[in-house]
Amino acid sequence: MNLLKPPSIQSLLGIEHPVIQAPMAGVQGAALAIAVSNAGGLGSLPAAMLSLDALDSELKTLVKGTQRPYNVNFFVHQEPQPDHDKEQAWRTLLASYYAQFGIDPASISAGAGRAPFSHAAADVLESFKPAVVSFHFGLPAPDLLTRVKSWGSIVLSSATTVKEAQWLAAHGADAVIAQGWEAGGHRGVFLCDDPVVALSTQVSTFALVPQIAASVAVPVIAAGGIASAAGVQAALKLGAAGVQVGTAFLLCDEATTSSVHRAALQSDAAHHTALTNVFTGRPARGIVNRMMRELGILNASAPAFPLAGAASAPLRAAAEKQGSGDFSPLWAGQNVSGCRAVPAAEMLKALLARN
Amino acid sequence: MNLLKPPSIQSLLGIEHPVIQAPMAGVQGAALAIAVSNAGGLGSLPAAMLSLDALDSELKTLVKGTQRPYNVNFFVHQEPQPDHDKEQAWRTLLASYYAQFGIDPASISAGAGRAPFSHAAADVLESFKPAVVSFHFGLPAPDLLTRVKSWGSIVLSSATTVKEAQWLAAHGADAVIAQGWEAGGHRGVFLCDDPVVALSTQVSTFALVPQIAASVAVPVIAAGGIASAAGVQAALKLGAAGVQVGTAFLLCDEATTSSVHRAALQSDAAHHTALTNVFTGRPARGIVNRMMRELGILNASAPAFPLAGAASAPLRAAAEKQGSGDFSPLWAGQNVSGCRAVPAAEMLKALLARN
Repeated sequence: MNLLKPPSIQSLLGIEHPVIQAPMAGVQGAALAIAVSNAGGLGSLPAAMLSLDALDSELKTLVKGTQRPYNVNFFVHQEPQPDHDKEQAWRTLLASYYAQFGIDPASISAGAGRAPFSHAAADVLESFKPAVVSFHFGLPAPDLLTRVKSWGSIVLSSATTVKEAQWLAAHGADAVIAQGWEAGGHRGVFLCDDPVVALSTQVSTFALVPQIAASVAVPVIAAGGIASAAGVQAALKLGAAGVQVGTAFLLCDEATTSSVHRAALQSDAAHHTALTNVFTGRPARGIVNRMMRELGILNASAPAFPLAGAASAPLRAAAEKQGSGDFSPLWAGQNVSGCRAVPAAEMLKALLARN
Repeated sequence: MNLLKPPSIQSLLGIEHPVIQAPMAGVQGAALAIAVSNAGGLGSLPAAMLSLDALDSELKTLVKGTQRPYNVNFFVHQEPQPDHDKEQAWRTLLASYYAQFGIDPASISAGAGRAPFSHAAADVLESFKPAVVSFHFGLPAPDLLTRVKSWGSIVLSSATTVKEAQWLAAHGADAVIAQGWEAGGHRGVFLCDDPVVALSTQVSTFALVPQIAASVAVPVIAAGGIASAAGVQAALKLGAAGVQVGTAFLLCDEATTSSVHRAALQSDAAHHTALTNVFTGRPARGIVNRMMRELGILNASAPAFPLAGAASAPLRAAAEKQGSGDFSPLWAGQNVSGCRAVPAAEMLKALLARN
């Protein structure tokens, strides 16, 4: 098969197979990335929820575990102004849940939980010079991007529309991830005033990949709904140079996916996902659960991303202690049919099988 | 390439190429179906908006125009109880538009506009014995289905979930159309109490096709987002035995697509579609226009399908006379990139090109 555009994603990223393991903050660390990179794909370390110390420590683990290229992923959102009234109104909405679990609302921190890429993070990154750095929600400020590129990292970012793909290619992305509507986790949408309103502009992998591939000169990586070797081959047919797969890795041995999350992925509930803002303030796809049903899947009262996360964190912790995922973000894409509890290297092999 | 399950969709339907032209009520008649069937695909005649006389006349035209297999498509919705209060409330919502166009609300009929398949329609159909009959919103009652099968027609219907596909295969469908979320026009969703609520269960072609193909023994036809030869090949990779393509044919010479609809399809607006119930009472994907923006894309006040259509019909007619598609259902899928103003035979050839 000779469908890849020059440069192929393999030569651009220095990998054997055109499969990127999607960075998934909260459900994996270095172990999954190491396993995928060692098997010839591109393993990814999600850094959005890591402190600088934790980032340094995970990167040390990564370079001990693999000699091969890996990807480090950062969020590049604008930090919001805290809005006290909105925050209070949101906590009032959650009051009956706090009462149910015996949580004192005064004890809940207002921390953001997710920090955007910064010079301080770049300082940590610089000593590792990862082969690939990927961003979500656009690209960092030009001086920061220049720093990352100065030490040779290849830069990727996600586009959810043709316009976003063109913007990324024009502003320095070396390849564009076309994030179809079916993808799990946060939508990468960034050229918008309101990411909830922007949802109506989001299209599926089948519609997005060929339109982006026809619009940019850089390689396109398809993401969303790809869960099998047939899916990988279909994405390449659509004009992708490679694929990014997340959900299929969630049950892998090396993932740190919680037991409630693993149980949900293996239940009938996994066939009903939705884009919700109730967990973080920004639309992300997860398995529909109690918190989404009762608060409304998209709730205009949710504090701005990532501030909404603080209010539900103690509910999540308390519910999970009781074995319940009622308040957990159960991130998953629309196609869980590829999930299997196997080593990640075996999952990668399954994604590359020839029919 | 030997990816087709036995029986191949070609042998099942008696066609040369595994491409079905999607039936599109309101924008095509026999001419488009004839052109596609004569070119070796399966042309479709949409019967949902035809009177029995018109159905008979179109079928006479069809059989004069082609010796090859063709498909006749019917809706099989439950006819709703008219709800006077809901109808009045809906017309009150539209009152300012009526005033703007000088339309007397008392002059507006309450007609349904779309009739479900019936024994009377079967009486017309029987003398033509079409090779293929397809249904939308499920299957007709068993006695009606038995009649259709008794004269040898192959029966197709649309599934929007794995459960719907299994239901269709168990109740007599000879092949299942997996209608991905990106498809234009009415969602075929039928195993639900409320088709608007059911939208959250709808998944994309990329996620739906492989999951349905793994769940039913009958051939699967992929629909939604397929607009090029690469798209056709990708759908076959995903496990489809064939494809159904609608949007790409909308600009074809033989389509009766209105001039406002053609203009919208060729404008930037075409990249922003949504599932709306304001035109008919049931979710259908179209290009976002004034009526959708101002009434809300999904409006709980809309009368039940298909009754909502009567209230906006005169607005549509008046606006179109002024060259405006503000009140027209501008049905389209999420991938308009394949639309071209060419003969349908040429479009079919483009969909079958080898790379």
